[in-house]
This record gives sequence, structure tokens and C-alpha cells, in this order.
Amino acid sequence: MRVVVVGGDAAGMSAASQLRRIAADAVSIDVLEQQEWTSYSACGIPYWIGGEVAGPDALVARTPQGHRANGINVHTGWRAERLDVSDRTVHAVEPRTGAPRAFPYDHLILAMGARPAAPPIPGLDAPGVYRVQTLDEGQAIIDALQSRPRRAVVLGAGYIGLEMAEAARSRGMSVTVLDPAAEPMTTLDHQMGALVREALTQRGVTVRMGEGARAIVTGPDGHIRAVASDTAEYPADLVFLGLGVVPRTELAHAAGLPLGAHGGLLTDDHQRVEGHPDIWAGGDCTEVTDRLTGQRRYVPLGTHANKHGRVIGLNIGGVETRFPGVLGTAITRFEEVEIARTGLSTHEAEDVGIDVAATTVTTTTRAGYMPGAQEMRVRMLADRADGVVIGVQVVGGPGAGARINTAAMALWSRMTVAELVQVDLSYAPPFSPVWDPVQTAARVLLAKL
Amino acid sequence: MRVVVVGGDAAGMSAASQLRRIAADAVSIDVLEQQEWTSYSACGIPYWIGGEVAGPDALVARTPQGHRANGINVHTGWRAERLDVSDRTVHAVEPRTGAPRAFPYDHLILAMGARPAAPPIPGLDAPGVYRVQTLDEGQAIIDALQSRPRRAVVLGAGYIGLEMAEAARSRGMSVTVLDPAAEPMTTLDHQMGALVREALTQRGVTVRMGEGARAIVTGPDGHIRAVASDTAEYPADLVFLGLGVVPRTELAHAAGLPLGAHGGLLTDDHQRVEGHPDIWAGGDCTEVTDRLTGQRRYVPLGTHANKHGRVIGLNIGGVETRFPGVLGTAITRFEEVEIARTGLSTHEAEDVGIDVAATTVTTTTRAGYMPGAQEMRVRMLADRADGVVIGVQVVGGPGAGARINTAAMALWSRMTVAELVQVDLSYAPPFSPVWDPVQTAARVLLAKL
Repeated sequence: MRVVVVGGDAAGMSAASQLRRIAADAVSIDVLEQQEWTSYSACGIPYWIGGEVAGPDALVARTPQGHRANGINVHTGWRAERLDVSDRTVHAVEPRTGAPRAFPYDHLILAMGARPAAPPIPGLDAPGVYRVQTLDEGQAIIDALQSRPRRAVVLGAGYIGLEMAEAARSRGMSVTVLDPAAEPMTTLDHQMGALVREALTQRGVTVRMGEGARAIVTGPDGHIRAVASDTAEYPADLVFLGLGVVPRTELAHAAGLPLGAHGGLLTDDHQRVEGHPDIWAGGDCTEVTDRLTGQRRYVPLGTHANKHGRVIGLNIGGVETRFPGVLGTAITRFEEVEIARTGLSTHEAEDVGIDVAATTVTTTTRAGYMPGAQEMRVRMLADRADGVVIGVQVVGGPGAGARINTAAMALWSRMTVAELVQVDLSYAPPFSPVWDPVQTAARVLLAKL
Repeated sequence: MRVVVVGGDAAGMSAASQLRRIAADAVSIDVLEQQEWTSYSACGIPYWIGGEVAGPDALVARTPQGHRANGINVHTGWRAERLDVSDRTVHAVEPRTGAPRAFPYDHLILAMGARPAAPPIPGLDAPGVYRVQTLDEGQAIIDALQSRPRRAVVLGAGYIGLEMAEAARSRGMSVTVLDPAAEPMTTLDHQMGALVREALTQRGVTVRMGEGARAIVTGPDGHIRAVASDTAEYPADLVFLGLGVVPRTELAHAAGLPLGAHGGLLTDDHQRVEGHPDIWAGGDCTEVTDRLTGQRRYVPLGTHANKHGRVIGLNIGGVETRFPGVLGTAITRFEEVEIARTGLSTHEAEDVGIDVAATTVTTTTRAGYMPGAQEMRVRMLADRADGVVIGVQVVGGPGAGARINTAAMALWSRMTVAELVQVDLSYAPPFSPVWDPVQTAARVLLAKL
């Protein structure tokens, strides 16, 4: 059996490795990867930029050589140019010679990932504007630090925006964050986003919400000089883009494969591309199903990519496995402030017609009397009709963020607020108040219901 | 309605407070508490002894005065002497005068807590031997530190033993831990207990397993001098008892109330004492039902006490609420090593006839490349018959322990290993590897099943 994989990061290499593990010698696996790296952690790039991680090698979980030693034919530098679905062939180009080469397949795995969104802002391609999607882009920023930049402007106050704001501050830069939204982290309810804004501001970041970039202003040398909004101009030595990503699906689209409203590939719950029994897709180039609403969403995260890869590898290898959808669990931090969420925000819940009951509680990360106990806020949402927990958001000090997994488990099992109050969670003073913070939120919300 | 509460700590005061909240003025509540404190954290005492917490006031969540301001008649220093069930009266003694006073009730709440187990070891009451169950005992140890003790011997290598070993080391003492068990933390499987032993030993604690105390050796002044086992004598300036606790149920037993095999009060799932519709009991003086086996266990923990109190208060107040049982979730730490468990150990599972599949994985608390990433081991047990997760144990660096809550949620919902692999848990490099450690264990165990 010949399997061809397009894309050598999380989804693609997880699929290949899983398949190799269970199918052993019965299958040949060719992976086409444009870059020189495989299985790397894009999520780690901000910490490399910030100086916490020695990159880029540390961010590579398994090199092309490592995969080859595992019996996977990794072709780095190769670009898949065209996909012939009827002929079951991927047409690629040999990188040095430009010579064409055809890769026929019995099963095709599409794992092209995502690219940074590029809104129509003049100057977005000027030198000094950086994305943080690939290791090459990360290296370019590391190189740019040589010139000792003093001022960074970050476009976007979402996950990547916050992480790059932290990284820039770690490198001693003054940081301005611009975002047209009302509050940072639009996947949170506004009152939780406001806490994030306060945390950024208190730590010296200039946060301009309700204010998007209109243009990148360049100097006579063509290098960026500032970012202009409708109302002001912010001098910048570096600009970081944190404007989200879009699925990389041109190849699939040209081949007539089905794309969803978000531009991602549409698959069934086995990660098979709809209508194409021999084509599989996973990771950031696909849309996922929201377990709570049943709707398609675009949630480009390494966790889903790895799970997709595993599911694809098992299915091709004959072990039928479903990918049961996502909750929208996510976590990040800005310095010592941890931010996490799972499930639906109020806005998302109301959009699907749910009558939302919500509460926000203030509690602590440890027993209040312990050194290192920090304030944390937990916002919990439930469906008023049945009391089922539908969303949880957390903002707080070290230890706060990890609590989101308790909430995610509750949502996964469609637990009611009343049941969540009763669960036997762990407690000792260095780890938690005697009522777990998630349960404290559940208690207060239960009293409201 | 007259409600009398015997015992003013977690279960008793939670019940009183919950009832006061929902029943408002329709009820009078009298609490009899032998000590001068209410609502204090016994779990925090080791951290007070260790010097992390300024006690004892910091350990009091709500003082008698605070409860009185809330409309609860707290009688500190009062001892309940006798319970007349047919006459619905608690007979107590006024502490200063010794005069008797009867407290008639419509509902009685029993929350007497536990006392340290006192095995028949000669000398256990000698000066220099300390329990850590009450704030008064905590204060006695703090006072004893004035004489600059150099050597502590801890009897018992369970939760309290480990916490007292840490506290003694924080105070500069050399520490010896004696326990007749094969490994520390007998609620863990032996290979996880061995990791705890190694952690203790590596940090300079003398650990003598398979070796119990035979006698406390005292000097001519009557003060302790050493602890003798069958094979050796360990010089000691202080001895700490970590031998577990037993329910404080003499009052209830004398009144003919039903006790279980562990000596704790038996209640139904509303926390009503069996056969007594107007008597309720919760916390460390009761037995609890194991959700996984349906059997009674004795699990004296503040979390259960608080939940019991809430359930009792709600039920008396007319809001019917069940206590749905426990998993046996517990957590502690020894210095930076975190130890947690939930569900059944291999031994416990085999005792109830479960065919156990198990695995132990080594992973990290954060993405492996992040600073502060520490090794952690996760041991997961499943029922081979249906693949349901039945127990998880964790030993590892900072951040490892909190993962037990993910496992507890899985056990609570009777999730299979296969489903646990798929749950949408949070990931970002400062918080987790891309596969959550609990899910990594589930993946490996799934491959075994």
C-alpha cells in the first residue's frame, strides 16, 4: 500500500508514525514537506523569540532523519504542485533540479497546515514585519534582534499576540498591542477579556483596543518605521502579526476537494475528506466539529492536529477510530497571568439559541493562607434549560490555567453544574482551596439556576 | 426549627452555614465545639509547622465570632456529653461552671471529626511526641521549636508523615521516617510508592520501610530520647505521628447509632444516619461510599467534609441533595515532588475482582523544551473487561499533581481509556506537552488493551 502525505508537521507526521507503528512493512509512506523541518512546535516559537528556549533544534520533536530511520520517506524541500484525484497522484517538483516527479498513492493524507491571515493592510510585507508560523520565520526574528530593536508593535490581542507581547518584553522592548476588538482574547467573554487588558496594562504594555492597523509606515530605506491606525501612529522597530491563521488549502481546492465556510477541508468523523474514501485530512488545513453545537469551526491547534494524525493513521491501518470533535479548549499566558477557556462563550452560546446562565467568581490558586496563593477568576456558563455546563473561562495567577482541564472534562461528559459540585477533586493547601475553584464557580452558578 | 450541631469544623460549620443561607430566620442553630476554634484547616498545620504559614489565625477560615455574626450560636469550649436520641436532646456541660445544659433539637448534625490513631506503642504519650490534628497541637509543636530540636522521627510514611517530614526539614532538622509498609504512600501501587521513597532519600531523609516503631524511648526526665524499632534505635528530639486517624464516634456509639466496619457513622446518600431521620452526619466521623466499588470506605478529607456539610444543610433546608460518593482522590507533595492518586490501586481493584490492565509512562510537566519542564510519571489502571479507567497515580515535579483532576473527572464519568485519549484538553508549551500526560498514559494503555 502506497501512502503519500502532504505536509510534515503535527498531523502529517503523527499519521505517518501511527500508521508505521501498526502497519509495519505492509505500507510505503512518502511525505512531501516544503521546509527543511518536520514535527516541530510552532507553539514554541514565541518562547524561543523570548529567549526561554534555545531554538530552533529544541522545537523539533523529530527530525526528517529521525522519521527516515523509522521507515518514513521524508522529502524535505519538496513542494506538492498539483493533486490529480482521478489518477490518484500527487505531482511534485524536485527542489534542486525543478524536475517533476509523480507520487502515486492508494491513500493520500493532506496536512498542509495554515498560514498567517493577511488582511489588506498596506505595507504588511515590508521588512520588519514578522509572522511566527514557521521555524524560518522564528529564525528571522532572532536575527532581527541583533539590531537591538526597542519598540515592538503587535497586531492582534489574541493568543499569538499576547505570547509575542511577552516575548518582546522579555527582550527589553516596549510593546504596543493594537486590536480592533473591544477587549483582548475575543474567545473570552468581555469581562474576562477586560481582566486580560488590565493585566497587560499593569505590566506596562500599551494596549489600544478598538483600534486596528490601517497601514504599516515605512521609511526611505523601505524598512518599517511605524504602524498607523485611524487615530494615531505608533513607532515600531519590529511588527509582529497575531491576526490569526487561515487554512492552507489551495492545492486541495484546485483539485476540487470540499472546503467549508472557514476555508478548511471538510472531513467526516474518521478524518476522511468528504466524498473521497482514499483521501484523509487533518490539522490546521481542516475544519472541525464543535461537540456542543454540532457546527463546523476552524480551530487550528496542535492538539487537534496530533489527534487527527493518530486517527488517520489508525483508520488507514485498519483500526477504525473516530475523531469525536472539539470543545474549543485553549490556554495561554501573559507573563505570570494565565488565561484559559473551554466550550462556548456567552456570545457563541446565544448564537445557537441557548438561554445562558453565567457567573464569575473570584477565588485563589491555592489555599488562601499559603505563600504563592494568587487570585483567580472563573467564569462559568450553563444552559438554563438543563443546567449543563457549556463554557468555562479562567484568568489568574500561576496554577489557574491548568484548572481548565477539569472544566473541559465536565463539558466533554455533558455534566450538569449540580453534578460538577460533587465530583471528588483533589485538595491539599499547596494545590487548591478546599473547594476547587471550578467547583466554587459551579456552586455559585447552581444557586442561580 | 431547632438544629444542634456537634463539632464546629468543616462538616459542622458548612452544614450550619448552608442551612442559615437557605433557611434564613426559620431555624435556630446551636453548635457545640470543644475547642476554641471553628472552621479551621487541619490540612494547613504542617505548613504552619514548616514556617510557610503564620498560624494559627491564618488557618481559621471563619472564627466563632464570624459565625455568630452570621446568626449561628457557636458554643466554644462546650463538650457534648451524652446524646438522648429518644428525647431528641444533646446533653452538654457548661465549661466554666461544669453545670449541665440540655440542647433539644428537631435536627441533629454530628460532625465530631477524627482523632489520630493510637497504636499500642509504649511511650506514645511521652512529652515530645506530637500529633498534628488540632490547632492546639500545632501550637505545641511551634512552642517545641524554641528548644531548637535537631532530629525528628516521623512515624508513618503516608500523607501526614510526608508533610511533617517536609516541615521538619524546613526547620533544619534531620529526619527519619519509619513505616512497617514496604513503600511509602500505601494508597499508591508499589512502583509509584518506590518513586516517593527515592525522592525522600535523594533529598536526605532517612527512610526505613518495613520497620515500625516498637517503643518510644524516654530519658530520665521523661522526655523522649529515641524511637526503637525491632532492629535499631533512632535518636529523636521530636516525634511526629502520621499513623492515620480514626473516627471520633464514642458519643454516637453510646447512643446506639450505627457504625461501620471502620468505626465511622453509617449514613444514607443524603447524609442521614441510617435509621434516624432527624440525625445527620458528615466529615471525618462518617464512612463514605466508594463510587467505583459501592463499598464503604473511611476517607477522612476536608473536601468530603465540606461537601457533606453542604448536602446536610441543603437537605435540612428542604433542598433535596445527594452525596454521590467518593473516588479516593488525594494529593500531597514532598518539597517539589508532587504525589496524587484517584480511584483504585491495583490491589484495591483486584480485591473486588477486577481484571486490571495497567501502564506507567514517563512524561513531562510542560513541553520538554521549556524551562522548568520536570519529569512526571503517570500510572493508569483500567478494567480489562470494558476499558474503563479505574485508577490513576501521579508522581512528578511542580505541575504534575494537579493533573489528577483530569483523571478524577474521567473516573467520575466512567470514561473508557479510548475516550479519554480524545478529550479536548488544553495545551500550550508552558503548561503541557502537546499530548497531555494523562492522555499519554491512556494512549499507551489503550495499545495494551
